[in-house]
Amino acid sequence: MISRSFLPPRATAAVANPTQRLDHWRFSSDALLALHRREAEIVRRLSPGVPLTTDLLVTLEKKVDGFSLAGACDVVSVDQYLTAADPGAHIGLSLDADLARGLGGGAPWLLTEHSTSAVNWQPRNVAKTPGQMRRNSLAHVARGADGVLYFQWRQSRAGAEKWHSAMLPHGGTDTKVWREVTALGRDLRALSEVRGTRVESAVALLFDWNAWWVLEMDATPSQDLRYLDLVRSWYEALWSLGVTCDLVHPGSDLTGYRLVLVPSLCLTSDTDAKALNGFVAGGGHAAVGFFSGVVDEHDHVRLGGHPGAYRDMLGVRVDEFFPLRDAEAVRLSDGSRATVWTELVEPRGGAETVLSFAPDPVDGGPVAGHPAVTRHGHGDGVSWYVATRPDAEALRTLLARVCREAGVAAAAEVPAGVEVVRRRGPDAAYLFVINHSPHDVSVPAEGTDLLSCATADGGIMVRAGDVAVVREHGTLPADG
Amino acid sequence: MISRSFLPPRATAAVANPTQRLDHWRFSSDALLALHRREAEIVRRLSPGVPLTTDLLVTLEKKVDGFSLAGACDVVSVDQYLTAADPGAHIGLSLDADLARGLGGGAPWLLTEHSTSAVNWQPRNVAKTPGQMRRNSLAHVARGADGVLYFQWRQSRAGAEKWHSAMLPHGGTDTKVWREVTALGRDLRALSEVRGTRVESAVALLFDWNAWWVLEMDATPSQDLRYLDLVRSWYEALWSLGVTCDLVHPGSDLTGYRLVLVPSLCLTSDTDAKALNGFVAGGGHAAVGFFSGVVDEHDHVRLGGHPGAYRDMLGVRVDEFFPLRDAEAVRLSDGSRATVWTELVEPRGGAETVLSFAPDPVDGGPVAGHPAVTRHGHGDGVSWYVATRPDAEALRTLLARVCREAGVAAAAEVPAGVEVVRRRGPDAAYLFVINHSPHDVSVPAEGTDLLSCATADGGIMVRAGDVAVVREHGTLPADG
Amino acid sequence: MISRSFLPPRATAAVANPTQRLDHWRFSSDALLALHRREAEIVRRLSPGVPLTTDLLVTLEKKVDGFSLAGACDVVSVDQYLTAADPGAHIGLSLDADLARGLGGGAPWLLTEHSTSAVNWQPRNVAKTPGQMRRNSLAHVARGADGVLYFQWRQSRAGAEKWHSAMLPHGGTDTKVWREVTALGRDLRALSEVRGTRVESAVALLFDWNAWWVLEMDATPSQDLRYLDLVRSWYEALWSLGVTCDLVHPGSDLTGYRLVLVPSLCLTSDTDAKALNGFVAGGGHAAVGFFSGVVDEHDHVRLGGHPGAYRDMLGVRVDEFFPLRDAEAVRLSDGSRATVWTELVEPRGGAETVLSFAPDPVDGGPVAGHPAVTRHGHGDGVSWYVATRPDAEALRTLLARVCREAGVAAAAEVPAGVEVVRRRGPDAAYLFVINHSPHDVSVPAEGTDLLSCATADGGIMVRAGDVAVVREHGTLPADG
Repeated sequence: MISRSFLPPRATAAVANPTQRLDHWRFSSDALLALHRREAEIVRRLSPGVPLTTDLLVTLEKKVDGFSLAGACDVVSVDQYLTAADPGAHIGLSLDADLARGLGGGAPWLLTEHSTSAVNWQPRNVAKTPGQMRRNSLAHVARGADGVLYFQWRQSRAGAEKWHSAMLPHGGTDTKVWREVTALGRDLRALSEVRGTRVESAVALLFDWNAWWVLEMDATPSQDLRYLDLVRSWYEALWSLGVTCDLVHPGSDLTGYRLVLVPSLCLTSDTDAKALNGFVAGGGHAAVGFFSGVVDEHDHVRLGGHPGAYRDMLGVRVDEFFPLRDAEAVRLSDGSRATVWTELVEPRGGAETVLSFAPDPVDGGPVAGHPAVTRHGHGDGVSWYVATRPDAEALRTLLARVCREAGVAAAAEVPAGVEVVRRRGPDAAYLFVINHSPHDVSVPAEGTDLLSCATADGGIMVRAGDVAVVREHGTLPADG
Repeated sequence: MISRSFLPPRATAAVANPTQRLDHWRFSSDALLALHRREAEIVRRLSPGVPLTTDLLVTLEKKVDGFSLAGACDVVSVDQYLTAADPGAHIGLSLDADLARGLGGGAPWLLTEHSTSAVNWQPRNVAKTPGQMRRNSLAHVARGADGVLYFQWRQSRAGAEKWHSAMLPHGGTDTKVWREVTALGRDLRALSEVRGTRVESAVALLFDWNAWWVLEMDATPSQDLRYLDLVRSWYEALWSLGVTCDLVHPGSDLTGYRLVLVPSLCLTSDTDAKALNGFVAGGGHAAVGFFSGVVDEHDHVRLGGHPGAYRDMLGVRVDEFFPLRDAEAVRLSDGSRATVWTELVEPRGGAETVLSFAPDPVDGGPVAGHPAVTRHGHGDGVSWYVATRPDAEALRTLLARVCREAGVAAAAEVPAGVEVVRRRGPDAAYLFVINHSPHDVSVPAEGTDLLSCATADGGIMVRAGDVAVVREHGTLPADG
Repeated sequence: MISRSFLPPRATAAVANPTQRLDHWRFSSDALLALHRREAEIVRRLSPGVPLTTDLLVTLEKKVDGFSLAGACDVVSVDQYLTAADPGAHIGLSLDADLARGLGGGAPWLLTEHSTSAVNWQPRNVAKTPGQMRRNSLAHVARGADGVLYFQWRQSRAGAEKWHSAMLPHGGTDTKVWREVTALGRDLRALSEVRGTRVESAVALLFDWNAWWVLEMDATPSQDLRYLDLVRSWYEALWSLGVTCDLVHPGSDLTGYRLVLVPSLCLTSDTDAKALNGFVAGGGHAAVGFFSGVVDEHDHVRLGGHPGAYRDMLGVRVDEFFPLRDAEAVRLSDGSRATVWTELVEPRGGAETVLSFAPDPVDGGPVAGHPAVTRHGHGDGVSWYVATRPDAEALRTLLARVCREAGVAAAAEVPAGVEVVRRRGPDAAYLFVINHSPHDVSVPAEGTDLLSCATADGGIMVRAGDVAVVREHGTLPADG
């Protein structure tokens, strides 16, 4: 007889018990972890001394807590595929790569799978344009990958994956893809000294599968709360500023970071909440998104006014949530636009109002005139609260200010559509400049481009779609 | 062995037998009624003399014939929740309230459940703006409720309903909702003399679960025939005119009404059809919507030209239905717009054409130039036929004329967005004025506002979002 | 025990084996064919000498290979119903009729079912406007039907099909539909001499259920590849040019045709590919759409560059597919617009570029500047390749040129919205002119209209919505 307490959530005429569902998410993830551990034990016994890993799927896999599975591997290895319908898919790639690095605590990692061109499992399997595969692969390297592999070597002639791209296409070696693949091999050889260096970042973004599971359950205030969408909106603002961030577990050691971002981390344990509050009290800066810290690790509401876990740190109390209707938008006091969510924020703890919802109800929505973004000095640090989902440009402006106050600088000042990241080793630093834009650009740099062998003296010119990896002056390798 | 005739409708490769499906709707509703009766018997035995009821869901519940279940209760009690995505949700509330009253034959009823603010089961659980809960609650009272209760008292800390609003929110007593709830208590005390009075109405709107079941089956002329949508469009026109109506069963006694509305009552029994025909012949007025009276109580078509049950009364014969395509619209002869449905109406029985479809096929659609709205003197009364779904403004104009001819007056002349209803007791009449608009308004009235204690001398000023309940002069209570 | 190899495709966590799924489509179709043969054997034994048939559903039925089932009938008979939401439903009707004729190798066939007006199983069952039923019925006759029947005689009073139109409506004989049905009887009598004649066509369009099955599987380059949509787009261009085509199996004898069209025939057997290549080498013309000939009869990719089966014949090699995003459009070098698909075409075999994708990436899309339409002399014939889905007008212009070069003429020069087809018997030819447009038109013709008895001397005037069937001069019947 199976005890009732061992049953998974059952079909129900109404809404299933959310805490039981959360437990079931955890149980499922732990069951996979247990299987991994059992298999790992055998593998390690049979191949002692060989590093062990398994394909992690980063944001492609909601079902498995990446942090716990990564913790049971010797090296983090991930699969990453672009979403063809997403115009910012290359930013999604960067996010996945930064999370891959976060899963391994910042250590170099391995890209086990990506594609040379189209995949076969999306509604429209858009192929990569010339140069796109190179940018994709080198973006992974920029963000800490020490190896980039593909699915698949030779394109299948039959079967379910025959229309998935490969290193060697149906057309053979006289093809665009094969030429690009072999050219990439040459690029990677030129970058060999980068291997083992670590990505530089002064910003942590708290990411948690538990929050993902809880945020997207039934019977929450709004089905428009999609965890990856909200995290991505904050990440994208930073990306466009040229600021690198680590995606880390809320329980991570935050020492060494200047700024911590907390987009809609609805579930927070007491311990993790205390750690963030302590980080700020000790002089750190934090920016917290709406509906963060509202429930504890059991998905029980923190009473007494939202956001329970961070109320004192933020100096605000939220009286009531006012999610917006589908396609509804409001204006903020600086004229910018926001969607999805508003709430009735009271700056009771002394927070200052940075932006408010526009004063008249037609523009300002259900909480017209009330605070939308607040700033609060807490201990030796500063905390910000963002009570809505600002549009991209508005969030970019806001986080630029937050970074400035926190003393966080970009890897380099960049024009729109250009990605910059710095890897630093014991002997040298490497500035990756990836130009996703259709324009030639110039980026401040001093040193030598390992790919083109060009010298950067004050600036490096990177052509539309091209990539440069500058070994920076004053950071010559030991053998240089 | 189960006899074949006891089987519910089975999965089928084509379309299930509609009469069998209708029987199954009835069987399911009756099965629930039988359960209710069995439980009621026990409850009555154990608590003799205590009035018995059960939560009815009005238009939220298609599966149960509200009239039959209400008939087995001592008092009607209903649950009502706003649909957040519906900009006219407050009009839907009024409709539900008028149906609640109709279920009990006009007697005062009880609102067992509604919400102080957001619910937790809609896609986006929009919270109530300040004053909205008060307007909602008092609209129920205006339309005959003698009590308004909420789900839930204290907002759950855990479980599926933790994000559903309550009288006492997560934030405690120092919150918008708690302040509004306690203020409402004071309002209700001020209205105590209204209890037991009855709502005044000269109009009946025929509503029937059987018609609902049949209209929305597969294999009808158009899936755009949604019963609640069609009923609501007629109801909304009346609401905006300030005219109150009772939603009653087609088999009800129509004596005392001046006007009967029949929006798309596709199924009509011979008895009910005869009653309406007799009502008009005897001097009453009726307005009938398209696809009414086309089938009998077994969902068998009434032959000889539509609408079979009302053909003679209306003085028309419909040769063929011409439902419109998705998003297709036609013009009527007065320039107004109509959608969903047209039909080939021939005024063979002598009806006069009030409006026709525009003459050219591009504007007028498939039956361009033919009658769209007709009027017919039948016996001592008048009957109207509406052969399409006019836009809101056009239907409002049409029903205004129908009311005028029938001698039906508004409870009071009102500006847009203002709701007026009159309850009348043996000693006094009470005019409820609920201002849903963003403007302050003045409404003709003589008497005393029980809420503000202001005196109305010719008119009462009601602020944007506010409510007044005027005890009208000349109707002082016995102890006045 | 059931052998594993006999199992149908099973549910899978990823994508089912496409070759197994193709086998299952074939098995299912063959199973129905086997049943048909077993029943036919009994019927033939009991009614010797009587022609045997069964309702074929043409494009309404993906599951059954129409060619194989038709091959087991003595005469082809089909059901055809308009899709109300399709503004070009009358063109879909023509396509179905031409396919019905193709199923029987060009012999006259029988329309077993169509409707006098609305059906009952579509979302919105739009009724036929006056004259539309007559045009529909006579279009079937024009395209080879020697009989047109209806579902249903008397409109059901009850049951699932009671709202389906009939020859005798609910309203009886004094109705629009009944009058039109009896008038049609008179028309058909006037056309009796047409019976047994054959439709004239110099164009074959290759149609194959196997290609349909394979094209619409999961995990193809784009879900926007819908077989009927692609075939229809080519068919519609021809229809609007007044050019009649036969829809035939790829394995058919192509002798006698001047032009063969091959829209997205993804699957091609070696034998069928060889036949088409031989047809062109021998002096025929062919136009091939993208993603044709890419897999063999087992759904295995033809290697070495697409389109494997036709590469040499077309003088091109496709390096890589570049399907477009949802709603994405590109411009061609003549300013026209195309959607759904682009690909990297290299004219390696000597094809000339007729149209290319616009040169800049914003307008031209992922393969900007590369060939979009090519033309190649192959042996004594000419082959065209269309590497995208041009908009209607662009495809019409292109196929007009293809027809002109192939020496294919219209049945008659026609204005927009007018359908022309010629049936020819041993003694006379009959030009059907069906005016679907809202304008009166004049079409070049010499002879006598069998319907109106008017004489055409250089031209025949056909009123908006009307039909003429001209027995052409110089083709008088034997007894004339």
